[in-house]
Amino acid sequence: MKALGRKGHFMDTGISEFLLVFQTVVQWIAIILSASSGVYDARRNGLDYFGALVIAVIVAVGGGTLRDILLGRYPLFWLQDPIYLISILIVGVIGIILVPISKGSLITENTVHNDLFNAVVSLMFGTSGSFALIDAISLGMWAYLGTFYALTSGIPPLIAPVMGVITASFGGVLRDVFFVKIPELFRPGQFYALASFAGAAAYTVCWTFMIPYPTGFLACIIITFLVRMISVRYNITSF
Amino acid sequence: MKALGRKGHFMDTGISEFLLVFQTVVQWIAIILSASSGVYDARRNGLDYFGALVIAVIVAVGGGTLRDILLGRYPLFWLQDPIYLISILIVGVIGIILVPISKGSLITENTVHNDLFNAVVSLMFGTSGSFALIDAISLGMWAYLGTFYALTSGIPPLIAPVMGVITASFGGVLRDVFFVKIPELFRPGQFYALASFAGAAAYTVCWTFMIPYPTGFLACIIITFLVRMISVRYNITSF
Amino acid sequence: MKALGRKGHFMDTGISEFLLVFQTVVQWIAIILSASSGVYDARRNGLDYFGALVIAVIVAVGGGTLRDILLGRYPLFWLQDPIYLISILIVGVIGIILVPISKGSLITENTVHNDLFNAVVSLMFGTSGSFALIDAISLGMWAYLGTFYALTSGIPPLIAPVMGVITASFGGVLRDVFFVKIPELFRPGQFYALASFAGAAAYTVCWTFMIPYPTGFLACIIITFLVRMISVRYNITSF
Repeated sequence: MKALGRKGHFMDTGISEFLLVFQTVVQWIAIILSASSGVYDARRNGLDYFGALVIAVIVAVGGGTLRDILLGRYPLFWLQDPIYLISILIVGVIGIILVPISKGSLITENTVHNDLFNAVVSLMFGTSGSFALIDAISLGMWAYLGTFYALTSGIPPLIAPVMGVITASFGGVLRDVFFVKIPELFRPGQFYALASFAGAAAYTVCWTFMIPYPTGFLACIIITFLVRMISVRYNITSF
Repeated sequence: MKALGRKGHFMDTGISEFLLVFQTVVQWIAIILSASSGVYDARRNGLDYFGALVIAVIVAVGGGTLRDILLGRYPLFWLQDPIYLISILIVGVIGIILVPISKGSLITENTVHNDLFNAVVSLMFGTSGSFALIDAISLGMWAYLGTFYALTSGIPPLIAPVMGVITASFGGVLRDVFFVKIPELFRPGQFYALASFAGAAAYTVCWTFMIPYPTGFLACIIITFLVRMISVRYNITSF
Repeated sequence: MKALGRKGHFMDTGISEFLLVFQTVVQWIAIILSASSGVYDARRNGLDYFGALVIAVIVAVGGGTLRDILLGRYPLFWLQDPIYLISILIVGVIGIILVPISKGSLITENTVHNDLFNAVVSLMFGTSGSFALIDAISLGMWAYLGTFYALTSGIPPLIAPVMGVITASFGGVLRDVFFVKIPELFRPGQFYALASFAGAAAYTVCWTFMIPYPTGFLACIIITFLVRMISVRYNITSF
């Protein structure tokens, strides 16, 4: 991840090496999960292979794209390095093969979770309980990246967390626009945008007080994760 | 308003001082009114506090944002100066407290207009007749600002009024996209876009003939206001 | 077309002169056809003159605008040269006069194809069989232009065809968003996006191997045309 190298304030220790690997792994899990859930939802909404690929791209990189267009940050990351679109394409093709076009979901209704194949499908395509856990971690990752890019672009700290929230959650908003639904994110439900905002705000505070690298990053990931999971576990909802 | 200072051709008189104050006042009334109507509509459409805040931002600064993205005018005004988002946030929080989530509107149906509190609510949240008057003035203000920015960005005069119309009315179009409705602005109704176009065109003519400052500005405000109010008063509608 | 001149590798022959004229003619037919179909669909969906003009603009230049915003290619072509908006305006006004607001289509149901006037209307407003032929040629033209601009903007060849597809077909996607419909392009149907992708990919291959000018251009037009027309003729659909 070229962009992560721009920080230039990594500690020269094993922990920092580990965190860099952790960041890269989480970011790619986030992209693959988003693309998977995009293609899954697209097929269930009756979209063909092309629509499913477009929705996969939108869910995976739509939030980051909107952020970069608002910030005027060019060139866009996924137009510079083909690795993003190629990864999403691979996930998309797998999803199109596994998930038939339908209104109802064949997978959630008929799959028996008794082998590795089904486990991977259900993990990647959103029918497993572990999805919520991993999704909560990626949510924090996107919030961190969006806020970080905003701050390094010179956006005032009071506004930077907004870019974190946009990066973390507007892929899904754009998806819902194409599905002709009022965005789920805007409706009463368990905290999602608020979780990413809390993490983004925590990171911004650490940035403002120049607290060195891993603190702000970890604060963002952990706080986003906690707010999200507590809201899911105790069904605390927005109003 | 930094941007207004860029004109550099104010008359050094009391009238020009007054106009500058007038402009600032109208611009802030326009932002607050737009945010108020956004949060009000959002709550009536069943959106939670987050959705209401997003819609408030979109209605208030969405048109100007689309204009600046089309013009490549960076950084975006509301990302540079936190005052915009903070003002919209305050309006949004007040609106979320006052307007409960519902399909029908409690305020319009139950409120008795017999005290100051109700008057302010009804003024800010769109149930008062005076809303149409103030909205018509803000419409002209946005048309003026959009056209002015377009012309100073080197957009040909034949196209500049289009940017005025986008600034004045596309916040509402974006709102309707998220509400999953064919934009009201595109449907037969009293002149709205046309009013802002008429004002923007008048300003562009004044600009082209280098008529000094307040004339074009006032022409834009007055013509937009007249076209809009005559259309409302005599129910002249588009076809 | 200034942009076409940037290639600088035209052959100095009559064929190249012919191709330049051909490109210009096809590009303008494409713009006029797109604007016509936009205004036609808008009127049938109950939009007023303003909505019809906006949809005409979106269908005609929306794909290219999205491409340029993603590429950060400023100023936008239709903001620099009024000829685009003026042409669309003329087509739009003719369309608004000829196509009354309605849910059903008066023209397709009542028109007897027995004079030149009706032939032109049916050709321009999408009720004629020749529409499919011309539309398939314009599809290739947009795919070519989008891919060409992406490659000259330094986009990697693996991604450039995506810009061709966006240019060729996202005007219609944006139209459907405002019509509150799941985009037709994303639903099972005859190949459209795939046809433009095939042409764009062919052009990208020619560009990568530095094959001189008309080959890649013609390959794009012909391959897009063939994929599209074979899919229409034999009703081969996406899945």
